[in-house]
Amino acid sequence: MPSAIENVPLSTRAAVTRELGIRPEFTSEYPLKRPSDLAPGECIVKVEYTGVCHSDLHLMAGERDIKPGLPSVGGHEGVGRVLAIGMYTPNSAIKVGDRVGVKYAINTCMQCDLCLRGYEQHCISRTISGYDVDGTFTEHMVAFIQHLIPIPDTLSSAAAAPILCAGVTVYNALQQLSIPPGSWLVIPGAGGGLGHLGIQYALCKSLRVIAIDSGDKRDFCLSLGAEKFIDFVESKDVVADVREICDGLGAHAALIVADSNMAYVQAAWYLRPQGTALCIGVTETVTLPMAHIVDMVRSGPELNKRTSLTGLHIGHKISVIEALALAARGKVRCHYVERPIEEISSVLEDMSKGKLIGRAVLKF
Amino acid sequence: MPSAIENVPLSTRAAVTRELGIRPEFTSEYPLKRPSDLAPGECIVKVEYTGVCHSDLHLMAGERDIKPGLPSVGGHEGVGRVLAIGMYTPNSAIKVGDRVGVKYAINTCMQCDLCLRGYEQHCISRTISGYDVDGTFTEHMVAFIQHLIPIPDTLSSAAAAPILCAGVTVYNALQQLSIPPGSWLVIPGAGGGLGHLGIQYALCKSLRVIAIDSGDKRDFCLSLGAEKFIDFVESKDVVADVREICDGLGAHAALIVADSNMAYVQAAWYLRPQGTALCIGVTETVTLPMAHIVDMVRSGPELNKRTSLTGLHIGHKISVIEALALAARGKVRCHYVERPIEEISSVLEDMSKGKLIGRAVLKF
Amino acid sequence: MPSAIENVPLSTRAAVTRELGIRPEFTSEYPLKRPSDLAPGECIVKVEYTGVCHSDLHLMAGERDIKPGLPSVGGHEGVGRVLAIGMYTPNSAIKVGDRVGVKYAINTCMQCDLCLRGYEQHCISRTISGYDVDGTFTEHMVAFIQHLIPIPDTLSSAAAAPILCAGVTVYNALQQLSIPPGSWLVIPGAGGGLGHLGIQYALCKSLRVIAIDSGDKRDFCLSLGAEKFIDFVESKDVVADVREICDGLGAHAALIVADSNMAYVQAAWYLRPQGTALCIGVTETVTLPMAHIVDMVRSGPELNKRTSLTGLHIGHKISVIEALALAARGKVRCHYVERPIEEISSVLEDMSKGKLIGRAVLKF
Amino acid sequence: MPSAIENVPLSTRAAVTRELGIRPEFTSEYPLKRPSDLAPGECIVKVEYTGVCHSDLHLMAGERDIKPGLPSVGGHEGVGRVLAIGMYTPNSAIKVGDRVGVKYAINTCMQCDLCLRGYEQHCISRTISGYDVDGTFTEHMVAFIQHLIPIPDTLSSAAAAPILCAGVTVYNALQQLSIPPGSWLVIPGAGGGLGHLGIQYALCKSLRVIAIDSGDKRDFCLSLGAEKFIDFVESKDVVADVREICDGLGAHAALIVADSNMAYVQAAWYLRPQGTALCIGVTETVTLPMAHIVDMVRSGPELNKRTSLTGLHIGHKISVIEALALAARGKVRCHYVERPIEEISSVLEDMSKGKLIGRAVLKF
Repeated sequence: MPSAIENVPLSTRAAVTRELGIRPEFTSEYPLKRPSDLAPGECIVKVEYTGVCHSDLHLMAGERDIKPGLPSVGGHEGVGRVLAIGMYTPNSAIKVGDRVGVKYAINTCMQCDLCLRGYEQHCISRTISGYDVDGTFTEHMVAFIQHLIPIPDTLSSAAAAPILCAGVTVYNALQQLSIPPGSWLVIPGAGGGLGHLGIQYALCKSLRVIAIDSGDKRDFCLSLGAEKFIDFVESKDVVADVREICDGLGAHAALIVADSNMAYVQAAWYLRPQGTALCIGVTETVTLPMAHIVDMVRSGPELNKRTSLTGLHIGHKISVIEALALAARGKVRCHYVERPIEEISSVLEDMSKGKLIGRAVLKF
Repeated sequence: MPSAIENVPLSTRAAVTRELGIRPEFTSEYPLKRPSDLAPGECIVKVEYTGVCHSDLHLMAGERDIKPGLPSVGGHEGVGRVLAIGMYTPNSAIKVGDRVGVKYAINTCMQCDLCLRGYEQHCISRTISGYDVDGTFTEHMVAFIQHLIPIPDTLSSAAAAPILCAGVTVYNALQQLSIPPGSWLVIPGAGGGLGHLGIQYALCKSLRVIAIDSGDKRDFCLSLGAEKFIDFVESKDVVADVREICDGLGAHAALIVADSNMAYVQAAWYLRPQGTALCIGVTETVTLPMAHIVDMVRSGPELNKRTSLTGLHIGHKISVIEALALAARGKVRCHYVERPIEEISSVLEDMSKGKLIGRAVLKF
Repeated sequence: MPSAIENVPLSTRAAVTRELGIRPEFTSEYPLKRPSDLAPGECIVKVEYTGVCHSDLHLMAGERDIKPGLPSVGGHEGVGRVLAIGMYTPNSAIKVGDRVGVKYAINTCMQCDLCLRGYEQHCISRTISGYDVDGTFTEHMVAFIQHLIPIPDTLSSAAAAPILCAGVTVYNALQQLSIPPGSWLVIPGAGGGLGHLGIQYALCKSLRVIAIDSGDKRDFCLSLGAEKFIDFVESKDVVADVREICDGLGAHAALIVADSNMAYVQAAWYLRPQGTALCIGVTETVTLPMAHIVDMVRSGPELNKRTSLTGLHIGHKISVIEALALAARGKVRCHYVERPIEEISSVLEDMSKGKLIGRAVLKF
Repeated sequence: MPSAIENVPLSTRAAVTRELGIRPEFTSEYPLKRPSDLAPGECIVKVEYTGVCHSDLHLMAGERDIKPGLPSVGGHEGVGRVLAIGMYTPNSAIKVGDRVGVKYAINTCMQCDLCLRGYEQHCISRTISGYDVDGTFTEHMVAFIQHLIPIPDTLSSAAAAPILCAGVTVYNALQQLSIPPGSWLVIPGAGGGLGHLGIQYALCKSLRVIAIDSGDKRDFCLSLGAEKFIDFVESKDVVADVREICDGLGAHAALIVADSNMAYVQAAWYLRPQGTALCIGVTETVTLPMAHIVDMVRSGPELNKRTSLTGLHIGHKISVIEALALAARGKVRCHYVERPIEEISSVLEDMSKGKLIGRAVLKF
């Protein structure tokens, strides 16, 4: 029998995308599944805070090849409490009342080859929050108990939200590197939402960070622990600057969170042989100049780099848990602006204009 | 004191590139360093067999950005015996009379960060045989004792030669993979010099090989142990064919030895999420269609691949030793045509026209 | 609603341990749970074949510190078909009628840190088949759908059974090694049930196998592909023999499946520095001479070995799948004796006297 | 021609072991090789500071199975400057005048399988400083240029000395772990010379440290960043204490630097399944109770641990460079007492009585 039915309303508050664009309609009458209708494994989460991700923006705006069905509710960085669990759900460590996180891959099959190997974020039958099903831009939502993430007690719900996607994305990417403490990591876009988390997670592995960004991001990046800062607007030669810092050999790795061609072109030249580019900020608007990709890998005595390009994207469940644990211990702090959910449209507009510093977290 | 001076002639036979092109001049009067002039660490090797590599062809023909100094002697797959060792050479396990291999990175500093980490093939002050110094297209050559490779007794010199570059290149590439036995590996260009060795080294790891090539390469590839063959000329949809073989999910990895745009484009689509493309056959003539590279790595729900592209190139000393050991035990056999060194120009011409099956080995 | 209720009997045939010892009582009236009583996630499997493991023997005989509750039914290498699935079981890829394997860790929580990291075989709340719940020595049993393993079509049920514990144990152990193809692996006890599978799985990684056993196991081991055989009864110095085979440096690894002190003592001396002992055959009857363990790891110039000892035990779900896949492709064949389930007591007696060659598989 | 001959005296100051024991004779007339007699690759180093290691103590005292030849000069943690380099030494990055470190494996062959794989510390023909040849307890010594380690400018010679053996030993051990940031590491003996460096290197990987030691080591360990301290004298149950801290599951790893039976026994019980014991402090005086080692690895449902024991010892050249680099950046500080070389006997006596806090560094 589902628990706590009495707390589950018949309808809820939500920011509903009724037509493509970044002005969802805010309503307090969005219909909600009844607890008694929940399938085994489903549950209802009362969302307290939700982060807002650039991929929400792009998807809602219809800037992706694939469009969301309409109407829909976006969002995939939710933190809240479990109100009800579907009947006949097999025994779970998560109980009604627990504070949990809802993540991008809100459900996966846990039976396919990818799930069994710990790549459940790539499960071919995964369900994406805010795309395949309604997401976290609503006060009450249906989630899947197997993929809820417990939130550590010492971490506030608002601070936890952006870790569920932005944080785990950079954490998981950095976990792919097998370079020793003291190796050089370049982060193009270091002052942004992903980048500033990247600096901090990199320091957890004692990597030495070269932050690339511009303007007043300098002080921000250095205050977070970046050892060097290169202003890509002012630098006459970013590649030369990086190489000079890194003993002339070049950097060991780059965490590319900037959605910019130039970031990829430059990485091809400033990485050392056998270096690795962790490619995160790659959307359709990035068009990699071919010659430079080829340079990364072509054969012959004149080029000797042999770097690797690795595409990365969120992370498996245990990565989310690890990324949250580091945040809970104060090793990583997300800089975010807290706004009421009702202001979601203006937040999305600020994001689309690049006016938002850090991440945005919306409060119900 | 150098040993065995009496056997070292004053001049030697060599195929000398006097102008860019694939018609080196064959001479029997090429000057040779005196044993007494050898620096510590240098030695003289009497070459018995040398392989011919496509990179020799491209370099001699001036098809690379950087051109060899002229006159020069190409070649970097040499097998022969040590005739003399420079005075004051620190104690070495290699002695006069030993049968040894001369490889592409004929010398490296062994002191830089890359050498110390076992990436000596990428040493920034490496010396390339046939480019920085005269190579193996000569009967007597100066080599560097620290980088000579002992040839196992049970392996003939002719069979060993192509392993020193072609063999180690595919062996070292496959060693980067951390996929379990039984995983699917696609080899575009499987019937060629690198590809047919790739099939065999892949089988040493119990990978399941899908060979891609055309025409009469089918029987050749299947006879070497490829489990499936796709004729890229006859197939209506190579990507669909690969995916169907691989449970719909796609292949775990691709060893791309084909110097072809299409090989890269297709790999982007037939690899499974978290798959790896080992990029070997990438010269200036490959121009990767950007959209497809981007597809490999871009974010968002519609694409979920997150593959890795890794550029690879020869291997470190211990990889050469391991690749030779597998050949010596009969696990890997190079298919090659043996020709006298005097016919080097016609061999190069055959190679440039794609008329040569397998690798070419020249005998002195 | 459970499927196929009509095929599920009210009671079943089983070999029931009513008192400690290796003479279970065979009955055809063992009670069976009703399909309608199955919890979500539970199912009923009709067992066709079951392997018999030495750990069954030790447990039934009461030779372990912890004793099974009585009456109980042992067995954890079962192959059969799913007859019924509990109501409200979340959607599963396994359907009624599928041929499946039942393994040692018949259920685990899939939520704890160990399960999430792919170590579900060590889950602290795991359920052991034949110990915590009735096992596979019965024609109809309750199993847990999440941990059933699909059996590849080309593998017979009898041949698959021993892979589910014996096979995956050696396969998973060997997967811990990061040594290259061509490295030397010693297998003490190579001619036994685990050992003969170890030889074959080692060959799948192109390791060179030195089999240690005695008497007529020589031909058996060599026929399976072991490169060298040392008869520990006839050898004057097993350690010297191994080291001589391995270039004087010693072996890279040992897969110790023998339940013998001497196997551990010798491994301490024949492994090369940084070598690894994979310790499988360690029961209470093994008492490692301390001095030799200490030798493996003690500091100082006189000893320079620094080997690793790793304890291993079955494997995670994906290892079982991989181990079965190699068997299905004919890379690994288990040698077993097939006997009717009614003869279980005589089989156990033969095993306890060391009279059984290979593994035993019982047919219902 | 050797450089700087004018600075090399005919004899030098040294602490000479003339009979087994910890009271070496201090002399200012110890003979020194002439620069013109240096073989290629040899050089003379003027030692400024030398660390003193417990293995010096044990070796000089004759407490090891193998005894040093007499007379001899111990020591293997030396920092000083290169005064002369043997003629015909192949080109080296190290020049006369450079500040360098002399380490335990003062020379290795760089050609054997172990050297080529980056395990040069285990080279079977390695030369040990202070055992095979005279070590660093002398003001001028013969060293081997290929194994000298450049000292970073920002690190004092005194602070660098203990990193060359104590530091790299714990650094290299921790590099073997593949556990994520936030994992629990127990360090028995955390307040000692190796242990206090282990705490700091562990923090460089964001491991959470449980220090085990006694008395006033508590404040010391906590001040270095250990998160928890267990006083093994006061604790009623060290194993229970560790497990309680680590979620009941136990610790992920232990860095055992204590030369104590109890440290090994306890690790067997407080490590979680698949945990790893890095065994450093293991000399002849440690006798591991067998039952507990067996428990670590034995099979059966009652024990489910499957931990690994890894023996470790110093590290390869690149590990020394990395360990020094972290010290140079202030991430790791060795606590040491500086004393004049003339007081070596009293320092050794203090060490043998356990009266010395941290490491000892002697100044010439």
